[in-house]
Amino acid sequence: MSYDGRTRVVIMAQPHADAVDLVMRDLPALRAGEALVKIRYAGICGTDLHIIGWNEWAARSYKPPFALGHEFCGEIVDLREGGPFRIGDRVSGETHLACGNCDQCRRGRGHTCENLTTFSRLDRGSFADYSVVPVSLLRKVPPRVSDQIGAILEPLGISVRCVREVGSEGKDILISGCGPIGLMAIAAARGFGAQRIIAVDPASARRDFALQMGADIAIDPNATDVVAAVRSATGGRGVDVCVETSGATPAISIGLKATNRGGALVMAGLPPRDVPIDITGQIVLREVTLRGVYGRLLDQTWIDTERALLSNLNVDAVITDTFALEDYVAAIKCARAAQAGKVLLQP
Amino acid sequence: MSYDGRTRVVIMAQPHADAVDLVMRDLPALRAGEALVKIRYAGICGTDLHIIGWNEWAARSYKPPFALGHEFCGEIVDLREGGPFRIGDRVSGETHLACGNCDQCRRGRGHTCENLTTFSRLDRGSFADYSVVPVSLLRKVPPRVSDQIGAILEPLGISVRCVREVGSEGKDILISGCGPIGLMAIAAARGFGAQRIIAVDPASARRDFALQMGADIAIDPNATDVVAAVRSATGGRGVDVCVETSGATPAISIGLKATNRGGALVMAGLPPRDVPIDITGQIVLREVTLRGVYGRLLDQTWIDTERALLSNLNVDAVITDTFALEDYVAAIKCARAAQAGKVLLQP
Amino acid sequence: MSYDGRTRVVIMAQPHADAVDLVMRDLPALRAGEALVKIRYAGICGTDLHIIGWNEWAARSYKPPFALGHEFCGEIVDLREGGPFRIGDRVSGETHLACGNCDQCRRGRGHTCENLTTFSRLDRGSFADYSVVPVSLLRKVPPRVSDQIGAILEPLGISVRCVREVGSEGKDILISGCGPIGLMAIAAARGFGAQRIIAVDPASARRDFALQMGADIAIDPNATDVVAAVRSATGGRGVDVCVETSGATPAISIGLKATNRGGALVMAGLPPRDVPIDITGQIVLREVTLRGVYGRLLDQTWIDTERALLSNLNVDAVITDTFALEDYVAAIKCARAAQAGKVLLQP
Amino acid sequence: MSYDGRTRVVIMAQPHADAVDLVMRDLPALRAGEALVKIRYAGICGTDLHIIGWNEWAARSYKPPFALGHEFCGEIVDLREGGPFRIGDRVSGETHLACGNCDQCRRGRGHTCENLTTFSRLDRGSFADYSVVPVSLLRKVPPRVSDQIGAILEPLGISVRCVREVGSEGKDILISGCGPIGLMAIAAARGFGAQRIIAVDPASARRDFALQMGADIAIDPNATDVVAAVRSATGGRGVDVCVETSGATPAISIGLKATNRGGALVMAGLPPRDVPIDITGQIVLREVTLRGVYGRLLDQTWIDTERALLSNLNVDAVITDTFALEDYVAAIKCARAAQAGKVLLQP
Repeated sequence: MSYDGRTRVVIMAQPHADAVDLVMRDLPALRAGEALVKIRYAGICGTDLHIIGWNEWAARSYKPPFALGHEFCGEIVDLREGGPFRIGDRVSGETHLACGNCDQCRRGRGHTCENLTTFSRLDRGSFADYSVVPVSLLRKVPPRVSDQIGAILEPLGISVRCVREVGSEGKDILISGCGPIGLMAIAAARGFGAQRIIAVDPASARRDFALQMGADIAIDPNATDVVAAVRSATGGRGVDVCVETSGATPAISIGLKATNRGGALVMAGLPPRDVPIDITGQIVLREVTLRGVYGRLLDQTWIDTERALLSNLNVDAVITDTFALEDYVAAIKCARAAQAGKVLLQP
Repeated sequence: MSYDGRTRVVIMAQPHADAVDLVMRDLPALRAGEALVKIRYAGICGTDLHIIGWNEWAARSYKPPFALGHEFCGEIVDLREGGPFRIGDRVSGETHLACGNCDQCRRGRGHTCENLTTFSRLDRGSFADYSVVPVSLLRKVPPRVSDQIGAILEPLGISVRCVREVGSEGKDILISGCGPIGLMAIAAARGFGAQRIIAVDPASARRDFALQMGADIAIDPNATDVVAAVRSATGGRGVDVCVETSGATPAISIGLKATNRGGALVMAGLPPRDVPIDITGQIVLREVTLRGVYGRLLDQTWIDTERALLSNLNVDAVITDTFALEDYVAAIKCARAAQAGKVLLQP
Repeated sequence: MSYDGRTRVVIMAQPHADAVDLVMRDLPALRAGEALVKIRYAGICGTDLHIIGWNEWAARSYKPPFALGHEFCGEIVDLREGGPFRIGDRVSGETHLACGNCDQCRRGRGHTCENLTTFSRLDRGSFADYSVVPVSLLRKVPPRVSDQIGAILEPLGISVRCVREVGSEGKDILISGCGPIGLMAIAAARGFGAQRIIAVDPASARRDFALQMGADIAIDPNATDVVAAVRSATGGRGVDVCVETSGATPAISIGLKATNRGGALVMAGLPPRDVPIDITGQIVLREVTLRGVYGRLLDQTWIDTERALLSNLNVDAVITDTFALEDYVAAIKCARAAQAGKVLLQP
Repeated sequence: MSYDGRTRVVIMAQPHADAVDLVMRDLPALRAGEALVKIRYAGICGTDLHIIGWNEWAARSYKPPFALGHEFCGEIVDLREGGPFRIGDRVSGETHLACGNCDQCRRGRGHTCENLTTFSRLDRGSFADYSVVPVSLLRKVPPRVSDQIGAILEPLGISVRCVREVGSEGKDILISGCGPIGLMAIAAARGFGAQRIIAVDPASARRDFALQMGADIAIDPNATDVVAAVRSATGGRGVDVCVETSGATPAISIGLKATNRGGALVMAGLPPRDVPIDITGQIVLREVTLRGVYGRLLDQTWIDTERALLSNLNVDAVITDTFALEDYVAAIKCARAAQAGKVLLQP
């Protein structure tokens, strides 16, 4: 399809659940520092599902109509003042747009910029044939990385960072929740030198995916005492690190207890409300550190991820389903079910 | 008073609040690896007050009668197989007795030993003329450190570790709660190179002590919006580190909010029950790390503390009251009031 | 003096020693991303003296005529696309211009950018009434910092980074060489929580400056056995960190021996040729780490420095002499002598 | 063979090269804290070869006759006050005996104890049927680890520590020198999550071993420009870490140049004399850190090694030759040749 200034794009059309639509839209003219990207694959993120489900947070944060999707791999087909980029470059996209001038940015912590905005707020969307993207968000996809993996580098970066934040090498690791972030964290833990990797998820299909991604054991928390199973699998010690991706209150409590004294629980999940924490028993007396991870380090995590993909990180198995863009309804349904890993759209 | 095998000692006599008594007791014969210490000063710890107040935790953990007190400075007057110690050595006491063989101990984390026991469980007591102490708990008091400071090296070590755990140099620090641990943390933050030090306590006397110990500002949380005051004092950023010593639920919530993105809240306080934590808003999106500190690193914290005392750490002002051993009732009353800093007993 | 597109500027006129001249020059028109800065003070750096002395390195690196000077404090009087800067802003200057795209830059290590260039290579010069500076090099001077200190933030940043690179809090530190970098490192070590600070320099005036800046002891290496003196001052241990600023071969050897097992020698000095190192005895058996520091972290060190200056870092005493711009010959002579600390030029 | 208080043991009989002999000796009676170990396998270390070759260092350090060998796996057959050990335990041996009381020991750095002694200085020897070993040197061999690997846990620990000292996860690593320490470092780098592993050795057989142990590339420094080859294999960057095990002066210089800006060269090799280092060009301007490793961390490295062996560390291929104890002459000859990996003796 040749470009005529218009694109198909999936939008959130109305402020209620499932009010998604595939429409035709004019694309804005490129401004300095922007690129026109022809999308090859777009990934469906858990955040997209929260928006489509129009939960409380989405209703508070967005105003329809707006374009959906932020994960993608595509090709630059036009460019204005593109810095190191050229037309024809194959690119993926960071979604965090840092101001560059605040205290966090000056200290190399652009991922927690005080004036942070995100690609999702720009009404551009990656569930589309074309998208206009600020070049500061673009990242080149290395030659040996496929288009499909190129489309999930952003969420993969979260998994990589979770695993690297407190170090994984030589450690026993618990992955709590085996959605795409958890599944990719298993592969990342394996690639970055973890020892025993224990996965927990109530969905049987996800436990199977977990074993495929490299977990040594996959535990059903509804059928098994997770803390006891973890201790038994780690010589009584508990894991050194727990990566918690579910955001579920009981999972956090279990994760703390399953972690060894002096270990760390890394939170990537987003609990919808306050979580009661046994600070005295777990945080103080056992000195388990509670540490959160929001997005990727810019650009250290991208570099870590790209280099690992060229070496000993393989996440191909996480992509379980690919749909044509026009089949977006089926794709969303698939992504919502606990039977899928990562789901892609192909324009 | 010459030693005749007996000692005065303050004991918890009955399983109810304030059932303390000063009694005469025979001391056990020294076993290999034990020292007889003539006590010069003993410090009253918050834990002692919890025991004397016979709270739920104390009732669950102790069985009267037993000897009270674990902080002390004294002189070794007898010794059996004392390793590097000699009769005449002036000593203070660690209270954590590590097994030396578990995974934690082998990894240099004896302070969270899986088989940890404490001096308090040995029924020896430091509120006494004499006490029998395992030599593995003894630490020499450096010549230029006074007997009074020698008696509080153990709690001072908690303050030093809180301040050093995530680094204080060049950082703005919030000290939440100005009991003895908080007050000594102020001095430690000053000595280890902190920049702005902000203290918070509802008691006016304690805020005055805080300023004396080196705080730049002391805030009354009942009169002032602490988060706003902290931001205003730190150029809008918030502090880099909060050391929380009160264990109060609202103080923890305030501490997280007053800490900068990417900063850390170090918990030394012991909340009596689970604390609701805004994991999404504070731990994940703002990446504030929650980290607990249990006791001192063995022996790194002792070395840090001893060396700092010989250089730029001065905590003399924290000792506000000293009582004769026989005035233990008045001493306990004094330590309970929010008018005192650290209270000592002198046999 | 009102601005007419011209400026006085000190240049290196010919390729031989001392061929400096004060000339009148037209300034180039501002390009996008450049600022016109009216200089208030400029600092004379050791590198300037190497260039003026036209040593081997200078002859290899520069081609006269070119403008001299890179340290300054000034006011922005004109600006094109200045990002966060405004006319009237008081500014100092970073001198390392990173490309922003190489592996080092993407990993937050712009100070060792693979395509690094420096302000000195731009033929702009700060020994002048006016200079045209890329805004990416400018840093705002905080209100409570004087113009004079604003002019030395760049070299002060080297001292701060040396002291912070391996941590100074609670440590005994040896400062080897008491030129301006060493003298400011003494103040930085004091401000960032060092304990015992020992200075070494053969020049008596510099040892006096060292004591003024906060050193506990200042040793003459020609009169005293430095290693023995350091051990005696540190309870036999040796220092935890040595900051070596002289680049002299014997000073490096002494520094390694004076450092405790497991400690670190931080090199800021630039030895003109290979230095024989006792790798077996010092680096392996005693595990002393040898670590170099090249410039400031961008921008972490600037932030560290600015914040410390507003709190417990005071380097006023390092500025010993200020000359009018037209007295540049006398200023250079003064900076060369071991009687001066930091020397400033005032247009 | 049942125990009658005597043992065969290989000794250094005279103070000149190759003056080794296999003799019968009475074993001393066990003292408190000692174990009698029946040796199953003993490893021949490079240090043993230096002693047998009677080089300058050996002549300065030892006085024949004395027993040879310090690496072993054996079974405890007798014990006096053995702490956590029991008769029948299968054990390996640490060789560094720390005092426990010096500043280094108190700070958890027993491996660089100020009063360090070694098993080799005790005239006990592991090239024997039986040896008397201080229990503080014993380490239990985990059930799933073979006797052969149990005999090389001590040198393996050096390799593990080299790789872990500055972190290997996600890093490109150069192993300089492929004797046993280098070969095991390759496996350790692989197990602890390194990416590209590049080995360098002039001996063809050792390059083959290197590839077997997991290296991606093995370079002959006599035929290839190592720095160019490393850059080409790492996208132009150079490696992140170089582990130097040869101690050869040119290898150190090459290792520094082949390491990326901000990277580290970890020295395990022991150069016999001072090595000229380009401090300005490599250590300062490129900020490559030079860091030495002396032995294992007690006990962190043992724990790291044991746990890795039960997971993703496999060093079986490093053991290339096993000889009966009485064939010690042939075993020594084999270990000296560059055709062998690790050589074992079996009593």
